[in-house]
Order: sequence, then C-alpha cells, then structure tokens
Amino acid sequence: MTKPLILVTNDDGITAPGLRALVRFMKEIGDVIVVAPDSPQSGMGHAITLDSTLHTERVVIDKMHGANEEYSCSGTPADCVKLALQELLPRTPDLCVSGINHGSNSSINVIYSGTMSAAIEAGIEGIPAIGFSLCDYSWEANFELASSYVKQIVSQALLHKIPKGVVLNVNIPKTENESPKGIRICRQARANWKEKFDKRISPMGKDYYWLTGEFELLDKGKDTDEWALANGYISVVPTQFDLTAHHAIDDLNQWNIHEQE
Amino acid sequence: MTKPLILVTNDDGITAPGLRALVRFMKEIGDVIVVAPDSPQSGMGHAITLDSTLHTERVVIDKMHGANEEYSCSGTPADCVKLALQELLPRTPDLCVSGINHGSNSSINVIYSGTMSAAIEAGIEGIPAIGFSLCDYSWEANFELASSYVKQIVSQALLHKIPKGVVLNVNIPKTENESPKGIRICRQARANWKEKFDKRISPMGKDYYWLTGEFELLDKGKDTDEWALANGYISVVPTQFDLTAHHAIDDLNQWNIHEQE
Repeated sequence: MTKPLILVTNDDGITAPGLRALVRFMKEIGDVIVVAPDSPQSGMGHAITLDSTLHTERVVIDKMHGANEEYSCSGTPADCVKLALQELLPRTPDLCVSGINHGSNSSINVIYSGTMSAAIEAGIEGIPAIGFSLCDYSWEANFELASSYVKQIVSQALLHKIPKGVVLNVNIPKTENESPKGIRICRQARANWKEKFDKRISPMGKDYYWLTGEFELLDKGKDTDEWALANGYISVVPTQFDLTAHHAIDDLNQWNIHEQE
Repeated sequence: MTKPLILVTNDDGITAPGLRALVRFMKEIGDVIVVAPDSPQSGMGHAITLDSTLHTERVVIDKMHGANEEYSCSGTPADCVKLALQELLPRTPDLCVSGINHGSNSSINVIYSGTMSAAIEAGIEGIPAIGFSLCDYSWEANFELASSYVKQIVSQALLHKIPKGVVLNVNIPKTENESPKGIRICRQARANWKEKFDKRISPMGKDYYWLTGEFELLDKGKDTDEWALANGYISVVPTQFDLTAHHAIDDLNQWNIHEQE
C-alpha cells in the first residue's frame, strides 16, 4: 500500500517551530512535502499574488527530521497551495495540513487567518484539508503536548474523509506540562475584536497608527470553539467556503428591488 | 431628520472610477465619508496590517462630486474599515458600502475579494454593509448603467435593515448601453479557478511564476449568482462570516477522536 501524500504549509514561514513540529508528526503517517512561505504572512487572510511574480526554491531546513521535499515560496499561504497543487507536487495529495500556527485561529479569527486560508484554498480545489493552531504566540511554544491528538485527527480524516465543501479548523489550548483534555467538535463562537489604534506622531510630524485590540467574546454557548479552548479541550470546527447565508434569502426576497423602476 | 451617514471604501484605491461613481450615487442618499486605500489592493482577501504602521491622510480628490470628507489610508480594505470606525468617523455609520469593484466578486471570488473583506469587516463590527462589483475589469467601465439599481438596493437596505450576521455581495453584469434586466437574490455558485502558472526564467537563471487561471463553474443551478449574471441580472448574495458548516457537525461526531488514547 502506498503511503498517503501530505502537503504541509503554514503562514508563519517555513522555519517556524510550529511547522517543523507538524512535519515531524506527519512523517509518522505519510510522505510529506512542504511548500511554505519564505517569511511570516500572519494576518494575510485569503490574499493571493495577482500583480507580481512568485518565486520558489527547493530547500533543506532539517536534514534529519525534515520532509521528503521542501520548497520555500515568496507568496502568501494561498499562493503556496496553488503552486504546490499545480506545479510542485508529483501527484494530487491525499491531505493538506496547515500550521501549526503560533496563536489562535478560533472564532472570528478564522476570517483573518493565513493558516486557514491555505486549508480553505486546498478545500476549494477539492483536497481534504485541516488547519492547526496552538493558542500560544510564543516561538518556544510546546507543540509536543498535542502530538497524539494531531495525529489522531489526521488519521481519522484520512479514514473517514472530510465532508465535501468543508475544511477543519483545529485549535489547541495552551496547557502547562499536560496534554489537552480531549477533542470537541464545535461551532465558531460569535466574537469580534475591539480595536484600539495607538496613534503616534512621526519624526516628520505626521500621524500614524499601530493596530491593537482586545478579543471580545459575544457568545455564551457551550458548543463553541471558545468554550472548548477555555475548558482545556481541542476545538474542531467544520468550516465552509460557501459563504451564502441561505436563511436570509427569503428575507431579502421581500425587499422592493425586483422591479425595474 | 438627519441624513444617513455612509462610509465608502474599496480595494482598487481611492482614485478608482468605481469608487468615484459609488460616492456620487451615495451623495444622493446621505452624508458620505470615504476611507479607502491609497493604492490598489486587489486579491488581498481579508488581510489586516499587524506588523507595520498605518498612515492616513485627509485628501480632496474631486471638489465638485467628492464626499463630505475623504481619507486615503496606507492599509488594506479591512484596515480602512477598522480605522474609519475607531478613529475617523464622527459617529457610527448607518451603512458601509465597498466598491464599485472593477471586476467580478461573484461565486468563489468572494473568498479572495478585498472589496468584500471591507464589507465583511464592517459586518463583523455590527455595521450594515454591502459590497458592489461590476463584471468589467476596464478602468473605463460604465458604472452609470447600474446607478438606479445601486441606489435602490442601498435605500432598501437602509429601510428594511440587513439581517444580522449577513452582508450583501452585489455583482453587476457588464452590459452594452443598457441597464441590467433586474435584480436576483442568489446563492454563491460552486466554482473554482483552474490555475495555470506561467513559468519563466529570470535573467539571473532562477525560475519564477505568474499566476493565471480560468474560472471553472461547477454549478448548473438557476438560483446562483453566476446564472443571474450570465442572464443579464444583478446578483445579490447574502453572505455570512460564521463559517461553521453546521451540517457537518454530526458527521464529525462519529469520528473516533473523542477519547484520549
């Protein structure tokens, strides 16, 4: 039996510890090819490179624990997936995994997430895909504590197939010296960011801003990703790229916009 | 009665003809403030600026037909909305409109769209929001043919309120010397892009790529945005930012991932 072919990418860049950990975990399950950004791309959302060129380079990051092949790419996470599928991989992969991100992509963060944009891009192209994120921004974060869960989720995804039109958004709570308590299938919690702009004046006398903000949870449900994470569980949210709010179609059909004036 | 306050933004940049047209149309309905990127941001998806500074400048683009106030911003469309709401507007706006984009944002294009990311950002922050796009990439595109429809949709949105958690993705077909046939409330058609990378070799001997591709419609439904546009109608898709695939939660609960090994 041939091993599954697993494409690994991320948004923190090809040398990020979270990606290196994911490569190690995936090598226990299949053949692994990495196509990942050559520099950090956090907050890029689903950006793609339309008006400039893309460069890739075959690299060896870690001789002992690295992937079968690795490519660094000048583009965004979504670019990496497009290039991997069209140009770099020898065949259609069985799975695309993105991450492990240094920082949460739960709740509304999924919208801004480069990690999830890579998984969603793969999903759009019909490849089963999972984004993994650890709720710890530190470069020294401990990814090993969730190792068995990550492998379990990937193995189950290869076995059961991910439902069509769906990619998985997996977030791992930060824990101290112990594994997460378990896994919960969740919905995305309602939340937003209460932005605060730190306004400053440049040496040239012009205003400029730094974006800062606080996460504001608007959802008390116990079936949400935020609840799971706050209670020590890994959250798995099935995430779709059909953005149609089907429930709103009837409402809008009541508007007076159908007749030409 | 005070006039509604309307925030106008886009992803093609503050001088784009599509934005200038939208400003003219909105001035017939309310007070208008523009906060838009100082340069084109197409394909930026829902990118935000996390690791560098943001600059804004009060500008006058068009003395006669311009907005009440206009600000150009160094950031992405989502940044513009965040800055507008937190720093630049005198009060919470009654509506945010984004566009009119030079080019389609129908179907799967919504995922990559800077135009729609601005509308979605406003929606996340609780502001009624609509993205407008014309299926004509030309800088000389005729935005006037859809003028009465655009104003009708905006007036109805102000009157009926847009359902909570929903923003509108409005696409306008390219027509020759006549207005679109009417408006259809639609769902997002299933589709993807068949990428082709144009691979070249630089003067320094390195491979590089240009991203090109063809839109591939995978959906024969007559209730989709692609059907509406192909048949001369304006499409209105209610679009949500809760990405949870609720129908998939039961499926995933059958997976063997709930017990710790």
